[in-house]
Amino acid sequence: MTSVDWVAGKVRFIDQTKLPDQEVYVETTEYRRVGDAIRKLEIRGAPAIGVAAAFAVVLAVRQSHVSSPSAIEKELTRVVGELSATRPTAVNLFACLSRMRASFARLHNAESDLIREGLLQEALAIQREDAEACRIIGEYGATLLSAGSSILTHCNTGALATAGQGTAQSVITTAAKLKKIARVYVDETRPLFQGARLTSWELLKEGIDLTLITDSTAGLVMQQKKVDAVIVGADRIAANGDAANKVGTYPLAILAERHGVPFYIAAPTSTIDRATPSGAAITIEERDPSEVTHVRGIRIAAEGVKVFAPAFDITPAALITAIVTERGILKQPYNVSIAGLAVREGGNHA
Amino acid sequence: MTSVDWVAGKVRFIDQTKLPDQEVYVETTEYRRVGDAIRKLEIRGAPAIGVAAAFAVVLAVRQSHVSSPSAIEKELTRVVGELSATRPTAVNLFACLSRMRASFARLHNAESDLIREGLLQEALAIQREDAEACRIIGEYGATLLSAGSSILTHCNTGALATAGQGTAQSVITTAAKLKKIARVYVDETRPLFQGARLTSWELLKEGIDLTLITDSTAGLVMQQKKVDAVIVGADRIAANGDAANKVGTYPLAILAERHGVPFYIAAPTSTIDRATPSGAAITIEERDPSEVTHVRGIRIAAEGVKVFAPAFDITPAALITAIVTERGILKQPYNVSIAGLAVREGGNHA
Repeated sequence: MTSVDWVAGKVRFIDQTKLPDQEVYVETTEYRRVGDAIRKLEIRGAPAIGVAAAFAVVLAVRQSHVSSPSAIEKELTRVVGELSATRPTAVNLFACLSRMRASFARLHNAESDLIREGLLQEALAIQREDAEACRIIGEYGATLLSAGSSILTHCNTGALATAGQGTAQSVITTAAKLKKIARVYVDETRPLFQGARLTSWELLKEGIDLTLITDSTAGLVMQQKKVDAVIVGADRIAANGDAANKVGTYPLAILAERHGVPFYIAAPTSTIDRATPSGAAITIEERDPSEVTHVRGIRIAAEGVKVFAPAFDITPAALITAIVTERGILKQPYNVSIAGLAVREGGNHA
Repeated sequence: MTSVDWVAGKVRFIDQTKLPDQEVYVETTEYRRVGDAIRKLEIRGAPAIGVAAAFAVVLAVRQSHVSSPSAIEKELTRVVGELSATRPTAVNLFACLSRMRASFARLHNAESDLIREGLLQEALAIQREDAEACRIIGEYGATLLSAGSSILTHCNTGALATAGQGTAQSVITTAAKLKKIARVYVDETRPLFQGARLTSWELLKEGIDLTLITDSTAGLVMQQKKVDAVIVGADRIAANGDAANKVGTYPLAILAERHGVPFYIAAPTSTIDRATPSGAAITIEERDPSEVTHVRGIRIAAEGVKVFAPAFDITPAALITAIVTERGILKQPYNVSIAGLAVREGGNHA
């Protein structure tokens, strides 16, 4: 199952809002359809959003009939702006769009067909690298877990959320293959039930022993000493290690600390945003109130009620035991370990 | 609006599972219908359950055609046993059923009509005393709040949950009349949405500025310093002050402590169970998995998923800033302040 893919000149994605009841695949040549899908969470998960946006840029540039590099650049700038506005928090979106621009910059003297092909190759590279990062994250993360571990996770960080086998979920499935996983507690993840709908569906297919709980049952489960580690993903990690992730992550980190349970974040380095000094600088997206007041179009809440519906919260670096990336396991102090990544990266590119 | 009442020989209650969309009142002379209502949460809220159970005993004794005191006692014992099995955690249920038995014990030499009338009077006294306790709890609790307070609450503790104006919610509405309430954050309270459906509905009618949030948004709201106090109810308070309340209360108490926010419990003394030494001795009810996997009959979760669905969790006494009762505000150490209540009670009855 591939969340988002390039198939014969089209972007193909699974509509995650319809899962697990219906497996509906959408194929489109319209970059705006991809943008809508990101906005509506038909495509979701920070890495998957980044890959989808890169493919959307390819679609846009193929759709346009301009041929001069400057006209292509103008089109690219417009489309990147449009796609950047779909969701504000996950940095992978911006990172992937930047890569597409940088790719164009390297190609800008080429013929238009070569530019278009070059952009496609860049998007495919982003996809491939994400899949590879997922695999390595799983291997690194699994080393953190002992045999018989009981894990708690939040939201969805599986294949659906990435171009590969997931981030936090890759740790779980990789560790499961090593017989390290006894049980997984899955937070249902209100308001959009990514845990109940997506993570449960994916883990059931993997044959992993999972137990679904409401988000606020996590306290009791930890109090009863049923959890050995909390592992979640991230949508943006600041230079100091503060991490934005699905709302409800911060309370889990506090609960984990209180109960002496390690709290791990698993994310590709593309989720790290060195330009954001700390969590305070991360914009938290607010979603439409109807996502809280309604379930499947049925109103649950009292009519006329005001809603605060942030999609994310910020977990301070101090609460994070380790950050598992495809370039190794980062430890405290994160400002140092994250800066260390940058130095190595600079070295590679020099 | 009265959650449960005695009207012309019948128990009349509002079916809380249908709120806020439909205001359906049920009238019945069948005690089993009342027991079912408690089991299905048509009647819910620890104090309201207690009052309903007392009325159910009256119905049962009136329905039965036995007339000898010993036959009535046998019937009473059977019915009390049946009603006791409806829900295991809220102690008010057991306390009220004990009061009904004690009332019978005082009357057991009387004629059957007098016994029936005496039991009705006892149930009405329970109802009246609960309403009065709610009013006084509101007044005591309001003294704890400063002007312009922003409150966070969980589940429903209003008129629906009691025979009066509520417990924690009575504190909120009483303080609001004193212009002390700037804003109330209401946790939606999964899985049955008592916050979204019931508390929101009740507070909107009171004209209070309320904001609905998903349960796990409470962390962000506190992190953003938007909460001055957390006030919740309780279903059972142990002799040491540990308190069982709707699942999700314990994480709130931990969040409150972490953010330096006072955490108050408001409950009538009938919720205190001196026979339970600590929270570890409280039975936590587990509900049907379908309450988590389905919303309004529509399946949300992946098919075949296993669920852990506790209705309550336990907040350790150490996390509770004060317990507001109709007999005053209890403070740490609760084993002493709760024992003090018992001494005074003994004194009153002597």
